[in-house]
Amino acid sequence: MKQFIDNDFILQTKTAQYLYHTHSEHLPIIDYHCHLDPELIAKDYRFDSLGELWLANDHYKWRAMRANGIDEKYITGKTATFWEKFEKWAETVPYTMRNPLYHWTHLELKRVFGIDKILNPETAKEIYDECSEKLRSPEFSARGLMKRFKTEAVCTTDDPVDSLENHTSLKKEGFEIKVLPTWRPDRAMAVESPEKFRIYIDKLAEISGIAIENFSDLIAALRKRHDFFASVGCKLSDHGFEKFYAEDYTENEINAIFSKVYNGKNLLQSEVEKYKSAVLFEGAVMDCEKGWTQQFHYGVIRNNNTRMFNEAGADAGFDSMSDPTVAKSMAKFFDRLNSINKLTKTVIYNLNPRDNYLVATMAGNFQDGSTAGKMQFGPGWWFLDQKSGIEMQINNLSELGLLSRFIGMLTDSRSFVSYTRHEYFRRILCNIVGNDIEQGLLPASELSFTGQLIENISYYNAKNFLEL
Amino acid sequence: MKQFIDNDFILQTKTAQYLYHTHSEHLPIIDYHCHLDPELIAKDYRFDSLGELWLANDHYKWRAMRANGIDEKYITGKTATFWEKFEKWAETVPYTMRNPLYHWTHLELKRVFGIDKILNPETAKEIYDECSEKLRSPEFSARGLMKRFKTEAVCTTDDPVDSLENHTSLKKEGFEIKVLPTWRPDRAMAVESPEKFRIYIDKLAEISGIAIENFSDLIAALRKRHDFFASVGCKLSDHGFEKFYAEDYTENEINAIFSKVYNGKNLLQSEVEKYKSAVLFEGAVMDCEKGWTQQFHYGVIRNNNTRMFNEAGADAGFDSMSDPTVAKSMAKFFDRLNSINKLTKTVIYNLNPRDNYLVATMAGNFQDGSTAGKMQFGPGWWFLDQKSGIEMQINNLSELGLLSRFIGMLTDSRSFVSYTRHEYFRRILCNIVGNDIEQGLLPASELSFTGQLIENISYYNAKNFLEL
Amino acid sequence: MKQFIDNDFILQTKTAQYLYHTHSEHLPIIDYHCHLDPELIAKDYRFDSLGELWLANDHYKWRAMRANGIDEKYITGKTATFWEKFEKWAETVPYTMRNPLYHWTHLELKRVFGIDKILNPETAKEIYDECSEKLRSPEFSARGLMKRFKTEAVCTTDDPVDSLENHTSLKKEGFEIKVLPTWRPDRAMAVESPEKFRIYIDKLAEISGIAIENFSDLIAALRKRHDFFASVGCKLSDHGFEKFYAEDYTENEINAIFSKVYNGKNLLQSEVEKYKSAVLFEGAVMDCEKGWTQQFHYGVIRNNNTRMFNEAGADAGFDSMSDPTVAKSMAKFFDRLNSINKLTKTVIYNLNPRDNYLVATMAGNFQDGSTAGKMQFGPGWWFLDQKSGIEMQINNLSELGLLSRFIGMLTDSRSFVSYTRHEYFRRILCNIVGNDIEQGLLPASELSFTGQLIENISYYNAKNFLEL
Repeated sequence: MKQFIDNDFILQTKTAQYLYHTHSEHLPIIDYHCHLDPELIAKDYRFDSLGELWLANDHYKWRAMRANGIDEKYITGKTATFWEKFEKWAETVPYTMRNPLYHWTHLELKRVFGIDKILNPETAKEIYDECSEKLRSPEFSARGLMKRFKTEAVCTTDDPVDSLENHTSLKKEGFEIKVLPTWRPDRAMAVESPEKFRIYIDKLAEISGIAIENFSDLIAALRKRHDFFASVGCKLSDHGFEKFYAEDYTENEINAIFSKVYNGKNLLQSEVEKYKSAVLFEGAVMDCEKGWTQQFHYGVIRNNNTRMFNEAGADAGFDSMSDPTVAKSMAKFFDRLNSINKLTKTVIYNLNPRDNYLVATMAGNFQDGSTAGKMQFGPGWWFLDQKSGIEMQINNLSELGLLSRFIGMLTDSRSFVSYTRHEYFRRILCNIVGNDIEQGLLPASELSFTGQLIENISYYNAKNFLEL
Repeated sequence: MKQFIDNDFILQTKTAQYLYHTHSEHLPIIDYHCHLDPELIAKDYRFDSLGELWLANDHYKWRAMRANGIDEKYITGKTATFWEKFEKWAETVPYTMRNPLYHWTHLELKRVFGIDKILNPETAKEIYDECSEKLRSPEFSARGLMKRFKTEAVCTTDDPVDSLENHTSLKKEGFEIKVLPTWRPDRAMAVESPEKFRIYIDKLAEISGIAIENFSDLIAALRKRHDFFASVGCKLSDHGFEKFYAEDYTENEINAIFSKVYNGKNLLQSEVEKYKSAVLFEGAVMDCEKGWTQQFHYGVIRNNNTRMFNEAGADAGFDSMSDPTVAKSMAKFFDRLNSINKLTKTVIYNLNPRDNYLVATMAGNFQDGSTAGKMQFGPGWWFLDQKSGIEMQINNLSELGLLSRFIGMLTDSRSFVSYTRHEYFRRILCNIVGNDIEQGLLPASELSFTGQLIENISYYNAKNFLEL
Repeated sequence: MKQFIDNDFILQTKTAQYLYHTHSEHLPIIDYHCHLDPELIAKDYRFDSLGELWLANDHYKWRAMRANGIDEKYITGKTATFWEKFEKWAETVPYTMRNPLYHWTHLELKRVFGIDKILNPETAKEIYDECSEKLRSPEFSARGLMKRFKTEAVCTTDDPVDSLENHTSLKKEGFEIKVLPTWRPDRAMAVESPEKFRIYIDKLAEISGIAIENFSDLIAALRKRHDFFASVGCKLSDHGFEKFYAEDYTENEINAIFSKVYNGKNLLQSEVEKYKSAVLFEGAVMDCEKGWTQQFHYGVIRNNNTRMFNEAGADAGFDSMSDPTVAKSMAKFFDRLNSINKLTKTVIYNLNPRDNYLVATMAGNFQDGSTAGKMQFGPGWWFLDQKSGIEMQINNLSELGLLSRFIGMLTDSRSFVSYTRHEYFRRILCNIVGNDIEQGLLPASELSFTGQLIENISYYNAKNFLEL
């Protein structure tokens, strides 16, 4: 019987163990998509307790606690202390067996704090105290935690109106880990709420110094910010939406739509889709001209629980997978760009795994020899960044594309200790490839090439592809 | 090589074997969703032959026989004897290798009749004679069969207009196994056929003693029956439909629609959807007020073969999986109830497994801490209650929710010998969890907790959750 | 550690090895669906080089090369030599590890040319030279390659206007391998381009000798060609489309639509769907009257990359999986035929595996006892004819239908060396069934029946079902 989270965790064969320990474990981390708060890095924040580190904004844990029958008071409630919340989390942990949280929790205890104990109500207090004490020491500051995992570069997620002051100051200061912004213009597309949209457009006009009276003004303002992001080191854009938008439209139509929503009128669904199609397209052209990589995250429906949205706001654990029809609009979107030679390097992330095959084959339609793996089927995202989600993505990409050219894992996380997910991914990758070799599905004679392939997916592909 | 259906059937590791034999095998069965005919229990029916027991109404077997080239005469035909039908079934059995029927058939022979032989044309006669003789003895009556499997409670499926006389008499008589009704108001929503609908409404008016002239009369009549069902011990409602209905509507609209269909006019599709949305919503509110658990079975298209429907009627093996778009309407339906605090405990069953992930994450949106596992992603249903369907549901629930809070298996069956599916499920569950422990994916040190988790999923969760 | 592609490649257990080597390996191949060019068989073509054999029209390899960053010059380019293209392919091969191309490439080297080496830049030249030399010898002609794989019958894919001269001459000549045409009337349904459609209809009128002025003329002309195809030995029809068409229509409507498109006007989407529904239906009736087997391939979107379509044409590697809603229209299509007793033997192939379960259960709705396995859930098609695609189809069919009645594998290929995919399929099949026996999921006592089942799926079922 294998021990829980031992040195060969997840690695079922000798070859898998060899691949991981020799070709992956030691490599630095490039976390090209995360939601770290750059301010916490800039001021080298120190967490006061394990409760704060783990429970202040982790909606994965919140969902598990709710499913375990824990009162919201101990989840997003404002009155309970972090210790009280942690007690409830510790009570929940045994009930998360087989959920990725069970692995992540114990991996983080082990890798960050050197704790081998199983978290449960009996061990809660001592673990809390030991970890919290460590967290208050300098080596466990925000930067300390990043270094602990050999992080080489992180790409945060930032709005076009963001000043990027923290990124700038980190760069100026010469912080050894690259902290780069990512261009995420979702709010420039959020025309569903005319009121919020107008506020946003006005903010964009102000920060860009460009008066925005029509669609081309909007694009000019965005472009100015896009240039600024590039000057701070941005290499990626990112978009989150339910589905791809690729409607036909004319500039006149978009100007009329822009004017309508800016003046406070609700748009028809058809207008919303035309508008989003236009903004997405123009943004994609900018990304291509900069040589950036564009990312598309689709298939989520958000804030499904209105009562809790009113109580706890967005990103509190009330989002789930959607089932849009996407093949044709996705193809049309990419084809439109490709037809004018403006399709840049791209990563597509689906949320519902039933689209894995569709996305993997869609990527193949637009590979063009300009960059190896130009069109990437992105790693398991959100609900899919667990063992079987990671395995499915690796397997589906392998079968329908080139695993060898995959740029690998990211955390998509707000946490400074989620880097264990890179370890998790690498172990799963090495286990899959190692098993193939042991079973004669890959030749053992090519082990040095296979080792290189593991190194590439673990680290070098992301570094080269994203030009970090 | 492992023997076929031996003591450790399906259990691949020592730990799996330990979990099953120590923590699951001996526990009673709670079959919280079935289609047993309560009259057969009330009169303690004795089957005349294995042919009657197995082939009188099992559309799984019928489908397999048709696929094997057997003439309909020997399937739903009225002229062939049960022995003749059984001969054709025995001829088909070897051709069902790898289909769940092959396992269920031999599990039932072994567990019910103590027969170890493989059923095929050579063994057909002796098996038929031996089993039929046993079936005619008292220990193999309807109740005898239920006791043989340590059944503790069953929930049948009943129409609001049903008198529940059999449930009442069983209760009065003090039958040791709880036989409880389930509220299934599908016919109150079946407005596609105005003629049948009117007959049904008139029957409902009669049995409830409430004249039904508009929608609120209808709801009042349903409520009266709902109260009656509760008085007979009902704890669950159930709904079968192709997709979730959550259209916007006004009471005036629904009254107009009700009046239109009651007066024999065909409804527009949009009217059908509004009407169903209204009835579903009002029923869900009632369920919540009673503290019942509501069940939703979606994703089936029925009676696809018109020629055979005319010949053999409904439920004869001509239904299959559908592919509706459901995420948004499902979310809207639950959100509407949740917004007024009327969302009761819920089990969602999808038929097409491509929705497993969607449903598992949807459930998470409405977990609220009131009851552990309040929103249940239901066990593999119908075409999915086979080994891989069960494995997928267990794995997907584990990854995206809390397996530990799962209320476990049901038979969904018309048969008194389908309880073997509980054994099948428990073995699969123990095998999965046991393998995880052996591979170091769960800690062996927590085996006593894991054992409790197995007991809970096998029995206690259903008992406590459903308050049986 | 197992050796790469050894004698027991893919076969993990002794029982799997026994089943393959005793009950499958030696059986002839029936390739009931391929895209071989019959002219190459008729003239017993000899390939000049391995580059020509492999890279002249294999869009699988082309896609992999593009994904590997190879310039289009070396893919579909007209200036590069086959050797230059092969060099780029050899450079790509190591990067296809875990993609089916890695297995197919080395299986073909081994089975066709007796080469055990791994293809990479170091071995490229010697492998190229050795294979090319062999290819120029008589035993490696088109026919020689077919015989090398014990091919017994192939069914090519042919248009109704095709003269079938090569099929006829092969038959007359008495070529030992049956080379039969398949009726593929896709162009008679391609009304999206009125201009091309008119040219096609005129050609059909000419070759059939029937003036086509309305829909019934069209059907009469098709029927005449259908009769002719039958006279040349055709046993199958085939249709490729994005989804099933089963709209309601009248003959007047179809005549008006036909006239409109024939006269150069673009059709509305609703007209396109009515027209296709009518042609599909009438063709299906003809197939039934001939006792043919009809095949439906659905779920692909083609030519997604307009720029490359203009450069390289169709079938150049720019097609991918679609996500249409299909359950109801598929059911309606089959039900319409079944209601008038005109539903013939049928094979349904989905491209997106998320429909596997849907298709497998849909087939069950129309099994009718006339032919064992009358409705076939077809083998993994196109992007799914790799190990996991084949495994999914075998498993899903097993769970929801009768694996025992499956007509097995096909190549769907333009290549004379793709027959290795039959070997690949057979090994996977034997591995799955062998593992079941070793794990006690199937009885070892029934091994002789199981062996027969393997033989049937490998060869006899196709032969009997298709009456070849």
